Amino acid sequence: MSSDSTAVLRANQSLYDAFETGDADLMAALWLDGPDAATVSCVHPGWSPLHGRETVLRSWTMIMANTSFIQFVLTDVEVTVAGEVAVVTCGENMLTDLPVDPDALPGEAVAGLAGGRAVATNVFRRTADGWRLWLHHASPVLTRDQPDGMGEGNA
Amino acid sequence: MSSDSTAVLRANQSLYDAFETGDADLMAALWLDGPDAATVSCVHPGWSPLHGRETVLRSWTMIMANTSFIQFVLTDVEVTVAGEVAVVTCGENMLTDLPVDPDALPGEAVAGLAGGRAVATNVFRRTADGWRLWLHHASPVLTRDQPDGMGEGNA
Repeated sequence: MSSDSTAVLRANQSLYDAFETGDADLMAALWLDGPDAATVSCVHPGWSPLHGRETVLRSWTMIMANTSFIQFVLTDVEVTVAGEVAVVTCGENMLTDLPVDPDALPGEAVAGLAGGRAVATNVFRRTADGWRLWLHHASPVLTRDQPDGMGEGNA
Repeated sequence: MSSDSTAVLRANQSLYDAFETGDADLMAALWLDGPDAATVSCVHPGWSPLHGRETVLRSWTMIMANTSFIQFVLTDVEVTVAGEVAVVTCGENMLTDLPVDPDALPGEAVAGLAGGRAVATNVFRRTADGWRLWLHHASPVLTRDQPDGMGEGNA
């Protein structure tokens, strides 16, 4: 694997590390800044597109503030680098905590865990400071029954 | 608007024209070919990512073969060009026909129409032959209740 690919994959992993740890500073450092900051875009699962670094970072801050626990296991990570731009696609396998049942009796209020799965396309731009996120598009996987030969790993 | 942006938007519109008319040749012409053909990726709404020009085109052919009628109205179309790569985000407002009710009486079997909405991120690469699709990621919009200041048009 090229050093470019390795660096892109490290940046990609940092996105999920930032989310898991609720690290807004790391999140801000990952996204493209400077003259093209207004051109970043982000689609959270089920959302419409957000545009511009400030709006995108605000959305992450709010989502992280409303997430008490989340862990990601990335699967089917594919990276391709073309000049100044790199594309990563991956499966986002999430483990989150469930809200505590408001009707629970004292001592019963143990929150459970829930799993979920989305897929993401993450596009990075090469900058003097390293690879920076230009766009993120994540979406729920609604079926595991894609037609033959069209599942993951059949590329 | 720059001539690059205009050309990218024309290519973007062609994707939906190809789908509407079931034109597999036009669809094939729109997607990146040549040495980087294996690096194209495509996420249909609710699907996992598909990789590689052949797999992606096969998916479109199958989807178009199973669609008797579809019309798109694109909204909130945003384009940004950075060197050899361009990103378009847009809302895909779809009108499709409903399957005829199998329980309908003769004369009642008039198929209706259904509306739907997705959002797409389309990334194009500049080639000697014009802008070509490198990735398409479309996803359902599951809520219209994004937090304040985070809807479309608030960029």
